[in-house]
Amino acid sequence: MLEAKKDMFARANELRKDYLLDRWVVIAAQRKKRPTDLMKPAEKRQEGVCALCPGNEHMTPPAVLLYLSKNGGIRKAKDEDGLRPKNWLVRVVSNLYPAFTPPEKEEVKTTESDFALERATGHHEVLVESPKHNEHLGVVRVSQVVHVVNAYIDRLRTLSSKPYVKHVSIFRNHGFEAGASLSHAHTQLIATPFIPKIAEEELKASKTIFKKKKRCVFCGIIEKESRGARFIWQNDDFMVFAPWASVHPFEFWIFPKEHQCCLLDLSKTQVKTLAEAMRVSLGGLNTMLNDPPYNFGFHQITRGACEYYHWHLEVYPRLTIWAGFEKSSGMFINVVSPEDAAKHLQEATREEEKKV
Amino acid sequence: MLEAKKDMFARANELRKDYLLDRWVVIAAQRKKRPTDLMKPAEKRQEGVCALCPGNEHMTPPAVLLYLSKNGGIRKAKDEDGLRPKNWLVRVVSNLYPAFTPPEKEEVKTTESDFALERATGHHEVLVESPKHNEHLGVVRVSQVVHVVNAYIDRLRTLSSKPYVKHVSIFRNHGFEAGASLSHAHTQLIATPFIPKIAEEELKASKTIFKKKKRCVFCGIIEKESRGARFIWQNDDFMVFAPWASVHPFEFWIFPKEHQCCLLDLSKTQVKTLAEAMRVSLGGLNTMLNDPPYNFGFHQITRGACEYYHWHLEVYPRLTIWAGFEKSSGMFINVVSPEDAAKHLQEATREEEKKV
Repeated sequence: MLEAKKDMFARANELRKDYLLDRWVVIAAQRKKRPTDLMKPAEKRQEGVCALCPGNEHMTPPAVLLYLSKNGGIRKAKDEDGLRPKNWLVRVVSNLYPAFTPPEKEEVKTTESDFALERATGHHEVLVESPKHNEHLGVVRVSQVVHVVNAYIDRLRTLSSKPYVKHVSIFRNHGFEAGASLSHAHTQLIATPFIPKIAEEELKASKTIFKKKKRCVFCGIIEKESRGARFIWQNDDFMVFAPWASVHPFEFWIFPKEHQCCLLDLSKTQVKTLAEAMRVSLGGLNTMLNDPPYNFGFHQITRGACEYYHWHLEVYPRLTIWAGFEKSSGMFINVVSPEDAAKHLQEATREEEKKV
Repeated sequence: MLEAKKDMFARANELRKDYLLDRWVVIAAQRKKRPTDLMKPAEKRQEGVCALCPGNEHMTPPAVLLYLSKNGGIRKAKDEDGLRPKNWLVRVVSNLYPAFTPPEKEEVKTTESDFALERATGHHEVLVESPKHNEHLGVVRVSQVVHVVNAYIDRLRTLSSKPYVKHVSIFRNHGFEAGASLSHAHTQLIATPFIPKIAEEELKASKTIFKKKKRCVFCGIIEKESRGARFIWQNDDFMVFAPWASVHPFEFWIFPKEHQCCLLDLSKTQVKTLAEAMRVSLGGLNTMLNDPPYNFGFHQITRGACEYYHWHLEVYPRLTIWAGFEKSSGMFINVVSPEDAAKHLQEATREEEKKV
């Protein structure tokens, strides 16, 4: 029946709604089709000394977390007493220009202002994913991605336990056109004093559905998308697919098959299988589109809501531009159908799997 | 009291909420300050023949509206019977790759599908603002902007009267980095089968406030912003200011002082004063930042809601990039405070006023 409906629209475009959000996208796939149509020329980067490379540790604030190599294992440490070890595998520092900062003792609270105003209380950190400048998640060894995921978990545990933190965003900007101001492989973490809008909308919608159907809506989505035209790749613990109402060309999401609300729920084995899923899917994207700019963001919740919320990672390649229509309407136009995207990404990801 | 609260946050960033929307922005103004810090190098454009220039009328679908010069006045026409007049002042055509298309007679409706799916029914038009390729709204004569605004009104009246159209978005993409695929001066119109999300949220919030305060919330905002640090420019009928919770550096909004819900309410005089307000504010932005990319969008409603909704134009310069945090959280970071933006834009707009 779905196919029948789609046929009728052969000449018109489809308007699709997100699984949960009140977010509509026009799948305007007649305009551009092949991945190469959207490929961008390689970025020309002019950069000076990299503050994130080993040897330049003094150029950043002191590390709040270091993974140091020790007898084939990992020793966790911090930069302390003016010492800044150089033999790290992963390094986490405060952002030099933090958007959010921890509360300070001497501040006084008032509540009056013409319009709504709060202090931007929280944390803003940079997680250096590798000592090697260009070892991005799509090209590095899976064992290094395991360190990165473990560091996400360590920082998520620490930040989410602070009383003034209600949510932690873990996200990655890859390439200048995706908003990265540094090209050294890194992820950012932002801890905020409330749950951001998109997470709040997802929570609300998933709660409503859970109450009605007595089941996690995401578990149902995974089941449906595992056997259809939008499926991309899976291993024992994770599934990768192009979402029904993708708002970006070649967008894909990574879901744990087990019902979990955040990265803190991962077993040791699942850390490894997640690292593998990230490496091969990001590697596939990288190979297919010649290292395109992209953003990714973890959607997760660390307190309450665990019954009905299911964490996942959303990856948004930045191949087209959100323009006046998107910005003023909150509706989107996507020139690649998720079914086409999945077909190409499936092929690229399978090729990538052979390499790791 | 507002000032006192702001002082306390001198070292921390401010978190501000939009007047109406549940949209929060971090004003992270310590990172970048002067307009020149955000200035971009001039875009290098490689373009072939321009389909929107006079003489190439056959390269577009036939015009649904033409303004032709006639005895010093304007004659309205269409491309008909294969004829395509070349002496037009403004020309409106269907987009060659429309995101939305009118309904067709033979289509059958069904409702079943795994996930929400609709036909993208509506219209998608390109309004060529001038026969001259580079006569953008920030540099052209005010008399030409008057033609453009009149053409907006004509098309808005026609499109919004169709039974399957619930909303008309009028928006402009200026520069490739703002999503423009053509550099010839143009605006786009998209008519949709429902009210888009952002308009819906604005409507809902303004209705709630209207019920409580018995007054249009926007009329109150105009009053407050007319005498403060975010004021930019005004004439008899329009006011320009940087909004309290600007999500883009140097963002500004243009409001009619009179309570009106859409462009169809404009008097002949107000068409001229709006044209002047657009010309000098877009001209100021253009001069100050060396022709930066920007988007603008009219926020308006043509049916119902006129009691509490107040139309306006929002202009978003594209100087920074919405990255992983914005895309996955729905929160924003703006590196220029609206107060700084207003100061610079006020100066630039006053200079521009002398030229027109």
